[in-house]
Amino acid sequence: MSANSTLRAHYPWTKTPLVASAPMLNIATAPLSISVSEAGGLGFLAGGYDVSGLESKLEQAVQLIKQSTFRTRQVYASTGILPIGVGFLNWGADLTKSIAAIEKYRPCAVLFFGPNSIPDDLPWAEQVRAVTHGKTKIWVQVGTVAEAVAVAEALDPDVLVVQGSDAGGHGLARSASIITLVPEVKDALARRNVKAGIPLLAAGGIVDGRGMAASLALGASGAVMGTRFLASSEAAIASGYQAEVPRASDGGISTVRSTVYDRVRGILSWPARYDGRGIINRSYIDAVNGGMSDEENRALYQEELKKGDAGWGPNARLTTYAGTGVGLVDKKLPAAEVVANVIQEAKDTLQGLRI
Amino acid sequence: MSANSTLRAHYPWTKTPLVASAPMLNIATAPLSISVSEAGGLGFLAGGYDVSGLESKLEQAVQLIKQSTFRTRQVYASTGILPIGVGFLNWGADLTKSIAAIEKYRPCAVLFFGPNSIPDDLPWAEQVRAVTHGKTKIWVQVGTVAEAVAVAEALDPDVLVVQGSDAGGHGLARSASIITLVPEVKDALARRNVKAGIPLLAAGGIVDGRGMAASLALGASGAVMGTRFLASSEAAIASGYQAEVPRASDGGISTVRSTVYDRVRGILSWPARYDGRGIINRSYIDAVNGGMSDEENRALYQEELKKGDAGWGPNARLTTYAGTGVGLVDKKLPAAEVVANVIQEAKDTLQGLRI
Repeated sequence: MSANSTLRAHYPWTKTPLVASAPMLNIATAPLSISVSEAGGLGFLAGGYDVSGLESKLEQAVQLIKQSTFRTRQVYASTGILPIGVGFLNWGADLTKSIAAIEKYRPCAVLFFGPNSIPDDLPWAEQVRAVTHGKTKIWVQVGTVAEAVAVAEALDPDVLVVQGSDAGGHGLARSASIITLVPEVKDALARRNVKAGIPLLAAGGIVDGRGMAASLALGASGAVMGTRFLASSEAAIASGYQAEVPRASDGGISTVRSTVYDRVRGILSWPARYDGRGIINRSYIDAVNGGMSDEENRALYQEELKKGDAGWGPNARLTTYAGTGVGLVDKKLPAAEVVANVIQEAKDTLQGLRI
Repeated sequence: MSANSTLRAHYPWTKTPLVASAPMLNIATAPLSISVSEAGGLGFLAGGYDVSGLESKLEQAVQLIKQSTFRTRQVYASTGILPIGVGFLNWGADLTKSIAAIEKYRPCAVLFFGPNSIPDDLPWAEQVRAVTHGKTKIWVQVGTVAEAVAVAEALDPDVLVVQGSDAGGHGLARSASIITLVPEVKDALARRNVKAGIPLLAAGGIVDGRGMAASLALGASGAVMGTRFLASSEAAIASGYQAEVPRASDGGISTVRSTVYDRVRGILSWPARYDGRGIINRSYIDAVNGGMSDEENRALYQEELKKGDAGWGPNARLTTYAGTGVGLVDKKLPAAEVVANVIQEAKDTLQGLRI
């Protein structure tokens, strides 16, 4: 079965190419993920590293789906499977609580990211499969060829999300972009004959149909998009943060990969191979150019929080994770329009490329 | 006129999409550049920052072209224009000597890269245009949207080479990959109505037809490729260096951006915004993980040079510039096969993407 057929078999309500919304921590809640799935994409809810609120988020999703009039309600009514996924940060998420939530709410996919080591994901994969009898598909986000091969060999994943260096928020501190990473992962799996036909989704820098068309050319079957959905109507995001997305441009120099945006918030438990890409602001400039201590930077961050929306901006301090594609986002849109536009523009782009 | 038509008008012997070989310092000499053009691409000769040997390199090119039986001889005989380009590192190259060589040998293109500031390129553009009456087209390599706009406004370039973070050798220390950079450059020029139809060529991570097809989807009209041509039969490269290209894989982690690979060779004059991506070796590990001084590292480099081909490798010290696409290169090929393969695979890739 082709990778596209596999995705259609797992998620029959989705359109081709597959647009998935990333499980952005605190931002990807039920309204965003359901709007994406309702539009024929696959929305991910953020489970994050603290899953104490996960059941209530999933309960909210169920209530919204019951009010829906279209795809997600039909899928849920006929299958009992929630047509949204849940993303976990495996270095921190509690396995027992997470599995209980998955058993109760039966999401169509889970996305694993950031384990301390790949074998740590093994009980996750086994227990997820057990509690929903394989209905919840296992997606794993990887950032190198070595990681892709190791995950393919150890976890029997259903989908690999191949994340490149342009991605906003957390990712490997050092990695290639999807330009070389997606084809090399595809070739490496084929050469080893390990999960050779597995659907690959590209992540990192895809914000429109051109990036989607490029991802397909590279060998992916779709894309996981974060930054574009920061500026969606349904994102659970402060207005000050959201306004930064259409404001910022030239993301290669207006954003930077750093650990400082976690350190100022006291988030210190990510495995050392990760950092996060965010829009450059005073927290970064003071730390990197000014040599400010984490202690002082963190105290200033706490003060900045009191400013509310004025705390975000190039001369402010609040963390503003976004990818290098930030300059390609010019306005806020309903999530359904993002999904429809990306699919249509990808088709038009490929249609126009008769060489 | 479309960007593709513009390129065909300037370089009528070239095929679509355009494959250009990068002017890799010391490596891109007459045999490589002519083989690329002979195959329907556009080969660039390295002019570099020290142009004292440029006239003899161009003279060698003329002699090779006169011996050719196909494209390059026909073009040269009928137009008097050399069907190869010359790349300059403008922070170091002598303007007067360079212009004299261009006037005498009339290459079809020059590629400017790395000026101390963009206005420094202005006399270059003016004098190149004057001495060959516009026959030598002006290509400029940029790494940010801001740079692309400034170059478009100041220099009236004929082609922009948009270089992303995956590129091997020198490039901006911080930049996006071509995934977001190419479309944002295209949009920014269109929005300002400055050189809106100019051909863009993608550079950084393109080693095969999938990367080429992705570049076209992103809005480029072709690609400038370096790493793939390191492993070409015609490259003027030490066997030890060349063998590293098919050996290395997983370029996001086996290569790194750093200034150390210049510092160990005593090359200290690149503008501060640049560094270079190379395969990780002892020079880097000792400097970055071991805190070795540049003085000691440089002395060890000098010793390593005596080892010849054994001086290259992950446990050796000699600089091995290569991009993140290094893992997609599995064997040495004649340059003509590289050109033909990339064009054919790009066509096949796009043909297969009927969505």
